[in-house]
Amino acid sequence: MSRDVSVVSVDAANAEVVGRIASARAFLIDVRPASDVIPALGANELLHAGPPLAGWDEACGALRGAIAGTLFQLGRIRSLDMAERVVASGEIPLSPANDRNALATYGGVLSDRTPLLVVENRTTGVRAFAALNEGRGRALRYGANDPETLTRLSWLEGEFAELLAGALRLSGGIDVFGILAQALHMGDDGHSRQKAASALFLNAIAPFLVETGCEKGQLARALRFMAQNEIFFLPITMASAKCALASAAGVPNSTVVTCMAVNGVRFGIKISGLGDQWCTAPLPTVHGHYFEGYGPEDANPVIGDSEIAETFGLGAFAMSAAPALARYVGGTPEEARRLSMEMYSIAVAEHQRFTVPALSFRGTPMGIDARKVIETGLEPIFNTGIAHREPGVGQIGAGFGRAPIACFRGAIELLSNNPISA
Amino acid sequence: MSRDVSVVSVDAANAEVVGRIASARAFLIDVRPASDVIPALGANELLHAGPPLAGWDEACGALRGAIAGTLFQLGRIRSLDMAERVVASGEIPLSPANDRNALATYGGVLSDRTPLLVVENRTTGVRAFAALNEGRGRALRYGANDPETLTRLSWLEGEFAELLAGALRLSGGIDVFGILAQALHMGDDGHSRQKAASALFLNAIAPFLVETGCEKGQLARALRFMAQNEIFFLPITMASAKCALASAAGVPNSTVVTCMAVNGVRFGIKISGLGDQWCTAPLPTVHGHYFEGYGPEDANPVIGDSEIAETFGLGAFAMSAAPALARYVGGTPEEARRLSMEMYSIAVAEHQRFTVPALSFRGTPMGIDARKVIETGLEPIFNTGIAHREPGVGQIGAGFGRAPIACFRGAIELLSNNPISA
Repeated sequence: MSRDVSVVSVDAANAEVVGRIASARAFLIDVRPASDVIPALGANELLHAGPPLAGWDEACGALRGAIAGTLFQLGRIRSLDMAERVVASGEIPLSPANDRNALATYGGVLSDRTPLLVVENRTTGVRAFAALNEGRGRALRYGANDPETLTRLSWLEGEFAELLAGALRLSGGIDVFGILAQALHMGDDGHSRQKAASALFLNAIAPFLVETGCEKGQLARALRFMAQNEIFFLPITMASAKCALASAAGVPNSTVVTCMAVNGVRFGIKISGLGDQWCTAPLPTVHGHYFEGYGPEDANPVIGDSEIAETFGLGAFAMSAAPALARYVGGTPEEARRLSMEMYSIAVAEHQRFTVPALSFRGTPMGIDARKVIETGLEPIFNTGIAHREPGVGQIGAGFGRAPIACFRGAIELLSNNPISA
Repeated sequence: MSRDVSVVSVDAANAEVVGRIASARAFLIDVRPASDVIPALGANELLHAGPPLAGWDEACGALRGAIAGTLFQLGRIRSLDMAERVVASGEIPLSPANDRNALATYGGVLSDRTPLLVVENRTTGVRAFAALNEGRGRALRYGANDPETLTRLSWLEGEFAELLAGALRLSGGIDVFGILAQALHMGDDGHSRQKAASALFLNAIAPFLVETGCEKGQLARALRFMAQNEIFFLPITMASAKCALASAAGVPNSTVVTCMAVNGVRFGIKISGLGDQWCTAPLPTVHGHYFEGYGPEDANPVIGDSEIAETFGLGAFAMSAAPALARYVGGTPEEARRLSMEMYSIAVAEHQRFTVPALSFRGTPMGIDARKVIETGLEPIFNTGIAHREPGVGQIGAGFGRAPIACFRGAIELLSNNPISA
């Protein structure tokens, strides 16, 4: 820190930040086209996960697959192989979703026409956005762009999005953290495992879906899709974590992390005291569990905005709550618990509302302090899905990695040199 | 055992019994009036939990409340206080539900007109039955019988039962053990905590509820009730455990327990080798966690058929899966885990399909061997709700107890004296 910024003032700033995170009340209120809710979104612009990319050359396989599928579906290219030319030409600008309070899951991109889940922090009025989840396996966000994937996506972004939007408006908003708090008592980590939260969300929204008065075939189709999609709630969690963390950004001198995200080339973080400034480092290794027939040599470089869950104190930070997930991400319950317990050493506080029964209802670690990451050498853990490195394949596994310490060193250095005045 | 029955033949018989339990495939297929599915059910007969009772004098407060509410609702008495006279007179015979492959939850009684959940073991064709769950707190099965409780029950047994029956027929049957296996990975024990199973069941049945084509107000009402009832799945579990265990009854020489149940006065068990014979002992103490304002002095004696869950290898036998429940039943997660681990010492086998993530996916203990209970002195643990001792109040807490060893001693002695010939 710069010499005129005392430890006391940083601690006070960090306390302010975690207070804002803790007091957030996230409600899922609507589904709206991106152009309606994201200011100044260009008609050709595509929003991607993680920190900024230097165009098509830096785009990994899953991202290329998702860009091609999205442009084709929008009718902006006539065949998938035209994507490279239009993006490389600069006709289709790529920008980080995170800088617009939006989140891109894995390689998925958001266009002006993408219907977005709208989550509002009712304590501050801040809103954040994420696309609907297509389900596991072959999904556009994992780079799959075959006709079946695109047909399902058209239904999801058309009929389904309209129905869900209607139900959400009738509901007056669904309390997302209420669902997540229960889900952590039901084996979810709040990131890679969203089975309980997805089931509880269907329970909560089903009566309102009915009350939209939509035709029964549409209703049954929507309910069946949701019941079979065990990670339907993931983007809802992401947007909710974001609207809490966005409300905590820009507190002068704070060293608390407000964003962690990956673009397939670099891992990026933001700390509150630096506002919207990214601090990046090369990609970390992901330790994965691969679906049958695949291995690390097939893996796409890690990408995605879903590390907002860990930034918020869920996901790998709550792995003690999710023993069934440990195997899925390649470890034992004991190992997962040990790793997640380490995270208390780098956190400023503990969540009151997200508790872990197996830890005698201790709250999950909340508010990563970049200083503590450097002091302890403990890099934050994050859970992630793994896609195939070639566009067009989809998800091939899941695992976990560690946010590179270089990001945190860079952030603290930058803050020392450029403190925002209080 | 009698001298001509070798340990080897008992072990072989027990292996046959646990094989039958393990191979059961329970499907919830319908909701039907008791008179349609229970043979020779008298028009005035009421079926209650646990082993036989010597009439009204032995009926505990919750049972008296439930009997009075049921008879009043059926129009068989004009006021609640008439129940004592008609039951004491012998006009209304009381019989154990368990002897008819039916299960009564807590003090709840089944009449010929009660709509029953119908669960079929598709391996053997054996069916078992239980009443719909009214929710926690003020419920007839806990002895509450105020107008609000009875009005809700009328809706549940009328409009709701008909709608659910229609949906189940459309579904072709819902795989109960498939749901329970998932629920054990989601913090349920499969007895007192049914939150995940209930949510997953709503997920599974919702599209079929829609496809019945019923009016949207009815549909929304049904979905809302189910979403708010975290133990909706309990009687479904009970009937499923029963149809598995009933298929394992009557194997000559087997010492495996096929039923544990309580009637408010005596605890009763059945072992396979004795067929339908009850072996009873005085009530054990229940260690409970009471809702605010209540204590052990208010507690109704323990009653109910839901110990069929433990008999089947769930409930207290799977407490390691349910750390959030430990507090609810009055203990710590460590204590609950220690107690449930003891149950491996008295079980013949472990479930392949019901596994506990926190125990590195070990199966739950299955098939209580009465010999092992005697040898080890470890009495089987069971979870239970606790009702107020006075009729008309309802649930006031939850806890756990131990099946008295005297039942197991009695059963082994009886089997030694009266072995069924193979």
